[in-house]
Amino acid sequence: MKEEIAGQQSIIKYHHNKFHSYHDVIATEFPLTLYVNRQEFATIVCSPTNLEELVLGFLASEGVIRRHADIQTIQLDDSKGFCHITLTKEINHDNSHYSKRMISSCCGKSREFYFVSDAAAAKVSMTDKTVRAGDIIRMMEQLQDKSTNFKQTGGLHNAAISDGNDFYIHRSDIGRHNALDKLYGYCIKEHISIRDKVLIFSGRISSEILIKASKIGVGIILSKSAPTDLAIKLAHDLNITAVGFIRNESFNIYSHPDRIIK
Amino acid sequence: MKEEIAGQQSIIKYHHNKFHSYHDVIATEFPLTLYVNRQEFATIVCSPTNLEELVLGFLASEGVIRRHADIQTIQLDDSKGFCHITLTKEINHDNSHYSKRMISSCCGKSREFYFVSDAAAAKVSMTDKTVRAGDIIRMMEQLQDKSTNFKQTGGLHNAAISDGNDFYIHRSDIGRHNALDKLYGYCIKEHISIRDKVLIFSGRISSEILIKASKIGVGIILSKSAPTDLAIKLAHDLNITAVGFIRNESFNIYSHPDRIIK
Repeated sequence: MKEEIAGQQSIIKYHHNKFHSYHDVIATEFPLTLYVNRQEFATIVCSPTNLEELVLGFLASEGVIRRHADIQTIQLDDSKGFCHITLTKEINHDNSHYSKRMISSCCGKSREFYFVSDAAAAKVSMTDKTVRAGDIIRMMEQLQDKSTNFKQTGGLHNAAISDGNDFYIHRSDIGRHNALDKLYGYCIKEHISIRDKVLIFSGRISSEILIKASKIGVGIILSKSAPTDLAIKLAHDLNITAVGFIRNESFNIYSHPDRIIK
Repeated sequence: MKEEIAGQQSIIKYHHNKFHSYHDVIATEFPLTLYVNRQEFATIVCSPTNLEELVLGFLASEGVIRRHADIQTIQLDDSKGFCHITLTKEINHDNSHYSKRMISSCCGKSREFYFVSDAAAAKVSMTDKTVRAGDIIRMMEQLQDKSTNFKQTGGLHNAAISDGNDFYIHRSDIGRHNALDKLYGYCIKEHISIRDKVLIFSGRISSEILIKASKIGVGIILSKSAPTDLAIKLAHDLNITAVGFIRNESFNIYSHPDRIIK
């Protein structure tokens, strides 16, 4: 593995009412599993740079080490995503509340399992729903218009669910996952079928968000921001259409472009 | 509790080379602890709106419920932040990998403990370090300049640590916590004292990020974005100066303004 924070990928860009092939720079999402004194400790999903620093800072932050001298050896296998750490002491840390699966790229331990097994459990979308390019741009504008509190506080994530026409529910939260869970909860409560709906989201599409979309059961996710490489891989596998960078009358399609029509 | 996504607070604003008192709109961060069939299940930190939907969506997302009929009762005590859920079935969920402490506002379970106990464990800053207003603006510009990959991929968080003069280390990651951990790890590895350093961060100051800053051991955190109300409370308690919305030659001081000088 090279120490790369981003890589190139071929995508489809919609611009000036036309679809073009395009090479885009995509952020890399890299899972690194830590073993401390031979015990599996945690998996961090990260950008693959400065990994030794990341491991040290993470262990210090978790209270596992207090100083550099607490580390005897660090063996980093960055081709496979493993790091074996031997301490100069016993591990003085209650590991029982760790999932040992996935520490999210965003805030710490994920709500859910390591994304590979998670992806296996997530639903492959079977929808044949299509969305028009103009409606994608309109729905994102609608989400932006709803986001007055974001403009004021700078601290809210916005999400909405739509059928591409009338049905439109909007929710906000300081937490990305919470905004999506509120929509999911609304649909459960109101017995609304999600399969042919479209998810519209203000934030980045990370692997976790993609998995969440898959659990909710949508086949199309629209984002103002960019996906990661891992999210794109999962979107391919789970038959989800991921659309990002929706701004200024243009957007990028990262997976399953057949659902997006003119 | 009123259903409020944000509230007003009195802060100090730096603008046109002057400090002013100012009322600002601050995002609310609200902890909600779930008990499922009388067992403590998780604490979600969220914006306090649509809480019942949030609970339903969260439990469905976690695989605890599959449909609305799995819920017998939901009792929401939103003044104290508790929610008691009774299912029509046994809980078919391995709860052992849950911390039962804190689910972060951002991505799920926190790396760390529920923030109250966490804050108790976090270090109260003892630094008498001061920073000049002009240096705050300069350091944030420096962080922006370093963030070329962010502009390309739209998906990276940037953080730096500085003494306000010569020393400046910058790290990037798709994960907010990871970017901070890389800086922390660098300082541990190089035996650099952190107490009188300043942390500069591209993202929002949530309670989790404030706690992370406290663990790292800085007394001043600068952000391009806004803090939450809970982060401001913790900053007061932990004697940390929180500065946000650093843009266009101005910024806001949310706590301990004595460390910021002209």
